[in-house]
Amino acid sequence: MLLRHLLLPEIQDLIEAGRLNDVREFLAKQPGPEIAELLTALDDKERVLLFRLLPRQLADEVFSLLDPAFQNLLLENMAQEEVRQVLSGLTPDDRTALFEELPARVTQGLLGLLNDKDRKQALTLLSYPEGSVGRLMTDRYVKVEPEWTIAQAMEHLRKAGLDSETIAMLYITDARGRLTDDLRLRKLIIADPALRVADLLDGHYACLHSLQPREEAVQTFKKYDLYALPVVDADGILLGIVTIDDILDVAEAEATEDFHKLATVRPLQVNFKDATLALLFRKRIGWLLGLVLVNIFTGMGIKIFEDTIVAVAALVALMPLLIGSGGNAGAQAATLVVRAIATGEIGSEDWWKLVLREIGVSVAIGLAMSAAAFFLGLALGNLHVALVVALSMTTVVVAGSLLGTVLPMVLNRLQLDPATASVPLITSMADIFGVLIYFSIANAVLRFFPIAPT
Amino acid sequence: MLLRHLLLPEIQDLIEAGRLNDVREFLAKQPGPEIAELLTALDDKERVLLFRLLPRQLADEVFSLLDPAFQNLLLENMAQEEVRQVLSGLTPDDRTALFEELPARVTQGLLGLLNDKDRKQALTLLSYPEGSVGRLMTDRYVKVEPEWTIAQAMEHLRKAGLDSETIAMLYITDARGRLTDDLRLRKLIIADPALRVADLLDGHYACLHSLQPREEAVQTFKKYDLYALPVVDADGILLGIVTIDDILDVAEAEATEDFHKLATVRPLQVNFKDATLALLFRKRIGWLLGLVLVNIFTGMGIKIFEDTIVAVAALVALMPLLIGSGGNAGAQAATLVVRAIATGEIGSEDWWKLVLREIGVSVAIGLAMSAAAFFLGLALGNLHVALVVALSMTTVVVAGSLLGTVLPMVLNRLQLDPATASVPLITSMADIFGVLIYFSIANAVLRFFPIAPT
Repeated sequence: MLLRHLLLPEIQDLIEAGRLNDVREFLAKQPGPEIAELLTALDDKERVLLFRLLPRQLADEVFSLLDPAFQNLLLENMAQEEVRQVLSGLTPDDRTALFEELPARVTQGLLGLLNDKDRKQALTLLSYPEGSVGRLMTDRYVKVEPEWTIAQAMEHLRKAGLDSETIAMLYITDARGRLTDDLRLRKLIIADPALRVADLLDGHYACLHSLQPREEAVQTFKKYDLYALPVVDADGILLGIVTIDDILDVAEAEATEDFHKLATVRPLQVNFKDATLALLFRKRIGWLLGLVLVNIFTGMGIKIFEDTIVAVAALVALMPLLIGSGGNAGAQAATLVVRAIATGEIGSEDWWKLVLREIGVSVAIGLAMSAAAFFLGLALGNLHVALVVALSMTTVVVAGSLLGTVLPMVLNRLQLDPATASVPLITSMADIFGVLIYFSIANAVLRFFPIAPT
Repeated sequence: MLLRHLLLPEIQDLIEAGRLNDVREFLAKQPGPEIAELLTALDDKERVLLFRLLPRQLADEVFSLLDPAFQNLLLENMAQEEVRQVLSGLTPDDRTALFEELPARVTQGLLGLLNDKDRKQALTLLSYPEGSVGRLMTDRYVKVEPEWTIAQAMEHLRKAGLDSETIAMLYITDARGRLTDDLRLRKLIIADPALRVADLLDGHYACLHSLQPREEAVQTFKKYDLYALPVVDADGILLGIVTIDDILDVAEAEATEDFHKLATVRPLQVNFKDATLALLFRKRIGWLLGLVLVNIFTGMGIKIFEDTIVAVAALVALMPLLIGSGGNAGAQAATLVVRAIATGEIGSEDWWKLVLREIGVSVAIGLAMSAAAFFLGLALGNLHVALVVALSMTTVVVAGSLLGTVLPMVLNRLQLDPATASVPLITSMADIFGVLIYFSIANAVLRFFPIAPT
């Protein structure tokens, strides 16, 4: 952070003064991640200018560190030959991540700039479903043969290691290419060089499947505490590896998507910061309009009780508290369940236990809320209103909480995204229950304790 | 997942039949992560039994893979000597994570079981503030000397590598212990063994500071795409390293905390699955009761307009739609901003731009919502009500959206947690605006177009 703030004005001054050679010399001595951060703070024109001043190898490193959205901004302002160079400098997984971000038409054009081998590989990776483990793969891993000596394996590593994404873990396959074992580099390094690779193998390995959803890979990485995992197809053939730095990105992106969904914002695909007004409108308006439909039922519910409202207008003053509290308790429950499903913490075997516990929790919460509501009812209305609000509160809170707990579970069982049980949806649905319960109880109470209109 | 489901019934049968030797033999051949997963699925008694059957080294591995909550469950059922063994088998960072979870009294007892060196180290790590980078540190890294040859460095690695948490990155310090450089193992491996370590150094390194908040470490790891980062104190002294597997855990835990906060659930500290009814009650009731206070203002707002309500009761039927829509739009805005601040995507330099864009987005959303509300007003009320609802809707949506955008920014500037701008808080505050705007516009419309009570 510091470096960016220190360098930015200085670099901008040099650019303005046209002292590009000084900028070039200066940049060549900076680490890639600092330059990448610097680029994101510049405007479009400066960004391309600066990028062009980087020596080739540094440019490749910097480009690979940028977000796909920024990579795209740079590519748009480059000549075809520059684009070709930059693309060939990317690792296969970074290339897939970039192509995923681009419109199909642009991706087609870029694929045409790759050499045959890279293009074939990019097409293979893009053929895996969006959001699958296959899309995260790179083929830059090191394979060793069981019959090699440790010294031979180390010698191989010296040649093959330069190009590989990680050498922390090495892989062993059979003649047909099926994964048979993995080997920690550490084990190799500390082993007697005269031993054979086979002597270090234990036949146990963890792996991912290419068609698995990528969020499952996050859980697998957490389970095994590894920095890289191999990916196999249905026949066990080793296709590539996934590294933990990509998994960290996936974990953040999946969490962000769930945050947005829980607030009825459809996945943005781009950074919030870079989203256009039109895009934000499109991603937000859908559910808001949809929830208007849910409100029709709340409105119809209220209309049924119009006579009661005219008779005791003070009831209306407490209505937002009542339906709001049901919604808030439901929002808590839904968020807890949606997140616990996403982190793999709860599965369908836990559901009954969780529902029963939620009944207990929400009854306790409801009773405490009823006490508070009773005093508020006295303050804003009268004893009758206080009684109605207190009696309704527990029921409404329990109804909202159960809705928030059960709906994500049901969605999950139906193979739908549990985060669709968003807070606004739960809140709007709780409104319907709330209104019906509140005014029904009001009618009942008023029948037993009739009062004159206030 | 598969293995757990396959093994569980079989193991339980063997335990029931008392064939513990068979279980022991079977377990000794399984990989640690599978056993760890198996343990979490067993009940308390079986879990301890099974754990006791593991050979020492495997037991250490399995224990270190368990969540601190589960580690605690195991410890509670172990004899003192067993506890001592298990604790000494943990790495320093895992030990800190476990101690963090336990009540201070229990931690004191466990510290007494450690040898002098381990205890001193544990106390040092626990002296860093909760949630700081210092708490994630381990001292199990490898240092190399610049004057060594590559061959000497590799020889050192062979001895020191076994005990270290990662060997992907090696570190260089000066005579006073200040970090001066880092070196990728890969560079060492592919280098000419006759060269010196100094020949491979470039003087550039990334590092963390021990007192930094741990969520900043997540962003640093993402920026540098490294598997480990060194940690220094204010004088630049190398204190330890942090590894990316812990950072993945931090990223998930921080996201979970924000999810919960956004729904007014205070941080649980334990798994949702394992939370007791009493704990959930305590973590949820606080804000729910607090929001009752906010509702006092909504209620008072409504009371001002009681005459209007009695005159046109149909207005009430549309009130939940109106205040709900303001809250929903506000929930979207707040969630977008809170998450973007958490991922480091937006900083204070972007605020004005974001507020202006939000005005644009919310006006567009508000107009679309007004159109929908107009028709709903016609359906549930009459032309007057429809007019009031349509006129109010845009204002309420814009007010809610701006509240949701600005409140997290203000909290962040005040060094408070932006996620305190929770969805229920925004919704409840939007209710106040909503009610005042709605009934004020109703009064104005009714003055110009007076109608008889329905």
